[in-house]
This record gives sequence, C-alpha cells and structure tokens, in this order.
Amino acid sequence: MLYKNAGVDIDVLNLVRKDIGKHVKKTFGRGGRSEFGLFGGIYSMNDEILISSCDSVGTKILIACATDINNTVGADLVNHCVNDILTTGAMPLFFMDYIGFSKVRPKILVDIVSGLAKACTKEKMPLVGGETAQLSRFYPEGVYDLVGFIVGKVRKRDYIDPLKRIKTGHIILGLRSSGLHTNGYSLARRVLLRKYRLSSYVPRLKCTLAQELLKIHRSYRKDLQPRLKYIKGLAHITGGGFYDNIERVLPPGRAAIIRKKAWQPQPVFKLIQELGKVPDDEMYRVFNMGIGMCVVIDKKHLRYFKPLRPRIIGEIVKGNFGTRLE
Amino acid sequence: MLYKNAGVDIDVLNLVRKDIGKHVKKTFGRGGRSEFGLFGGIYSMNDEILISSCDSVGTKILIACATDINNTVGADLVNHCVNDILTTGAMPLFFMDYIGFSKVRPKILVDIVSGLAKACTKEKMPLVGGETAQLSRFYPEGVYDLVGFIVGKVRKRDYIDPLKRIKTGHIILGLRSSGLHTNGYSLARRVLLRKYRLSSYVPRLKCTLAQELLKIHRSYRKDLQPRLKYIKGLAHITGGGFYDNIERVLPPGRAAIIRKKAWQPQPVFKLIQELGKVPDDEMYRVFNMGIGMCVVIDKKHLRYFKPLRPRIIGEIVKGNFGTRLE
Repeated sequence: MLYKNAGVDIDVLNLVRKDIGKHVKKTFGRGGRSEFGLFGGIYSMNDEILISSCDSVGTKILIACATDINNTVGADLVNHCVNDILTTGAMPLFFMDYIGFSKVRPKILVDIVSGLAKACTKEKMPLVGGETAQLSRFYPEGVYDLVGFIVGKVRKRDYIDPLKRIKTGHIILGLRSSGLHTNGYSLARRVLLRKYRLSSYVPRLKCTLAQELLKIHRSYRKDLQPRLKYIKGLAHITGGGFYDNIERVLPPGRAAIIRKKAWQPQPVFKLIQELGKVPDDEMYRVFNMGIGMCVVIDKKHLRYFKPLRPRIIGEIVKGNFGTRLE
Repeated sequence: MLYKNAGVDIDVLNLVRKDIGKHVKKTFGRGGRSEFGLFGGIYSMNDEILISSCDSVGTKILIACATDINNTVGADLVNHCVNDILTTGAMPLFFMDYIGFSKVRPKILVDIVSGLAKACTKEKMPLVGGETAQLSRFYPEGVYDLVGFIVGKVRKRDYIDPLKRIKTGHIILGLRSSGLHTNGYSLARRVLLRKYRLSSYVPRLKCTLAQELLKIHRSYRKDLQPRLKYIKGLAHITGGGFYDNIERVLPPGRAAIIRKKAWQPQPVFKLIQELGKVPDDEMYRVFNMGIGMCVVIDKKHLRYFKPLRPRIIGEIVKGNFGTRLE
C-alpha cells in the first residue's frame, strides 16, 4: 500500500504549494524579511527575528476521538510547533489554538485545552488565545480539528541558517522519536485497523494499539536549547519523512546520505510495513521511522551531544541528488 | 427560529470558555503579560506589545464551496483578523493560514491562497506561512476549513485599553458592515435556503443570494488607523453580536445603551428575520445587523470621524446591566 491509497497525495500537495508560493511571495514587502518554504514563517524586528509556525495534529485526532482520550493531542500539537521553530534556533514566545467542530461534548473541549495548557507550561510559553468554532453540520459528530499557531523569537546572530552553515563532511545525528509523532496516521490507520482494534493489546508493541498511536510527539527543545550554537542545521522529520525535510536544509550542491542500518525503527513501523506491504522508500517518505529530529553538526562537536545518546545516521556530501537512503 | 436550532449554542460555548480559561491562565508566567477573554492575545516585548488573534470563516465557507467561488473567503478571514487586533490599536505584522480538507480540486487551494495573498497585500502584511493539511476521510468531499492567525503590534503608550479609557457619557459610533461579514451563517443558511437557491436572484437584495452571502467582510483598518488616538474603545461585532462584543470593552459599573432606530439594517437581515421568524433579541445577538464596528469616543472628537459617515448609535451610562438595546 502507498500513502496515496490512504487518501493523501504528497506529490499533488507539493505541486500546489509551488503554485501557492507565487501568490504568497507577492505579499512580501520591503519591511519584514519573509521566506516561503521553510519550516516556519520569518519576520524581522530590529535585532530579533520572530519565527512562527502553524500546524495541525492531522488524523491522529481520530484516534483521540475514537478512544475519548482528548488530553494528549494538545501536547502533540504544542511540541510539533515547538520543534518546527526550534529548527531556526527560536525559543517559544506564545501559542494560540483553533478547535473546529460541529457537535462534541463540552468536556472534550475542556480536555483538549487542558492538554494544550499543560504542554505550553512545560515549554514555558503562554497560551494567549484561541478560537473555539462550532460549525453546524460540517464536521462529523464527535470529531474535531485542532490547529496550533506558535510565535517564537531568535536573535539575528543566533539564527540557524543551514544554507550558510552546512558544509561537506558534516555528520547527521538522529534523535529518537517517541513513535509516529503526528505523521502518517492516514496510512497507519488504514493498515492497522484492518487487523486490530484500537483497544487490542498487541504483543509486539507491548501495549494496546491506542496507547501506541497516542504516544505524545516528543519536544526536542529542552535537549537542544543548550547546544544550539554547535548546530549547523535541524530537520524536524514530519510529513514528507526523510526526503522532503532534510532537503530543505541542504545548500545548493550538497546532498545527504542516510544509512538506514544506523538505527532500528520501533516495532510499530515494522508492523505497519509488514501488514500493509508498504515499500521501504514509501515508509521513509511518510514516517519518521524512529528518528524525530536530524541534527547536522561538525564531527568535532560530537562530544557535546553525547548526553542525548544520538545515533550518527549519515553525512553531508557533494551532489545534487537531495537525500539518498542507503 | 433561534441560533440554537441551527446547531450553534452560544451559551454552552461561553460556559466552556470559562472552564477553558482556568487552564489557560495557568500558562501565564511572570514574563509576558497575557490576558484571557480579550479580542486578541497579548504579549509584551520591551516597549511594544504583540497582539495576536485566530479566527475561521465559519460556515460561510460552505457558500464558497457550494458556488465554487473560493477567492474571496481569504479576504473575509484576513479582514476579520485585522479588525480583531485593530480593537487594541495594533497594526498587522504578519499572517498565517491553515487549510484543512480531505478531497478538493487543487485549483481550489490555489484560489483560496490567492485571495488570502491579495488581502494581505492590501493590509500591508506578509503571509509568512501556513499549513495545507490533507486529512483523509475527515472533511466532507469538496469542503475545507480555513483558519487564520494574525500577529500585530502596538506601542505600549498607544495600546487601547477600553477599561481605562471609557467613561460615562462617551458616545458609541456605528460603522456600516458590508453584510453578514462572517457571522451567523449557520442560522442564515438554515433560514434562507429553505426558500431560495444560492443562484436565485432575490429582488429585495438586488443580487443573487450567493452574491449577498459572499460579500467580503469589511476591514476598518484604513479608516480607523489615522484616528486611533481619539478612540476610547472598539468592539468588532462578530459572534455574540451586540451583547457579548460590547460587554467586553465596558469598565466595571459601566453599561451601554444602543438605540436600534439609529440605523437601518440591510435588507438581508430583515429577510432572515421575517422568513425565520427570529426574535429581535436573537437577531442582535447573532448578527451585526449592519454595524460591523462600534467605536466609543468622547463627543468632542466627533468631527474627526465625520468623513467616515458614522451613526451615533448609543452611549455609555452608569450601570451593571451590560448592553441594553432599545
């Protein structure tokens, strides 16, 4: 099975994004510096840069709805957003959320927001506002969409510009993910729910399917904040997997080699691949495969990262082939 | 008919917001100043304040989907957000969007973003990023949700704090709306689509129903920006109509009297009220009734607002009864 068969076509989305980019670029005046196609939006203010990002939990939300466990998706969303802006070196300033629904029990809304609030407190930023929108007969009953918006800031001299910092010979460290994080759920659900129920205990996972699929997206802020000055580039492995996300940090004429044997994906990824007969390449294009954040560094700085127990999963080489998985 | 019957219960939403508020307040550290229950999120940075807001177009989106006119809802969203932060005196800094869908033609996505981009350019802010999320089998086919996030800024000394500025005897000016703006669509659709098709020419409206319902939410920024120093408080009349929105700017012990006879609502509001047998109070609680922005000023500054052809629709009095419509 391919991601396409599960109803998500990354190629079409990428094409549309290019078209969208043309319109978006017209809005960039001479005032703020803005770029399209990065992990986060950029806006310059004096000697600081505001970095913002917008994300949703995707169809992971359907697991929360089906199990009636709604107090963890908030942390998924907050941590996803925090990681996105972290790739530029930015620390969180504040967060806002949007909850769209047609008909849900009020307790669900309170659970969602309590989860958001708890995660925001951990990430040391206030949840400054949000919108709770009841759209009559629009969303299926009992289902909601959850969108987050983060603004962070970074001093200009601390801004991580991978296109300037990354050089041939730098190594790529992989930091473990906690599981699927928030990507690939359409495919994962399609494959896994053919065989298991959410409440099934799956011996290979050592937990129920619901427990596995609701594992919270890990935040890498606390681990990486004290090490930012040694970082040449960060790729948050989200939608588009290893291919699209690493490519965004590669300077022209530079490519990345990733050695799949350098780490073991968690059992959930193997289970999806086996049950769905998903080609290997598709797996690494849709899922994080156990590596939630790629950190590009100069080898001489490796010792500063040892406490994080990173795997050296690849390196930067000359070439224009983007990312190659071996 | 009441808004409740159309599937939207403002009272329940308000109750939930109170519960949500408890959690949200826990995230407010000692660093930034943040408040819950205002139009926009607030974050202090040195001598400037960042003001942010999040909104959706609500079920107006269903009119866009049904008519396949998708290049105007972007302006609705941008202008709604601009007006929200304008109430604090803030000018737009940047904008981000979220589009959630399951299956729509790629052209629709490009149309939405071109509308957003055009409106952002008019409002002089870059569209710095966004998320286009394909959620397999989640949204009905052909339908999408559209959410916007705005960040603006205002100097501390220019920040409009209505609780400090508004005094007994101040007058309330009403600025015309262009139509429904982006509120009350669940009720409007329920009532109007029983009798008309979207393509029907409705003589009383002097246009088709679709043309009326897609009229773009007016931005008040250009008109109010040069007059902000004379403004004591601004209420953007959105969900909750005259009651909830004016109440938010009233200092303790102060109330607002609004004289309904001071202006004529556009024909579309009368049509909805007649066809739906909607009680008068419900109309003013759900719709803007032709007044999109209420501006509280000292009478002596009225001359500065004359070019905007405002109606004097009410005044601030002593009392704790909130807003009374006469």
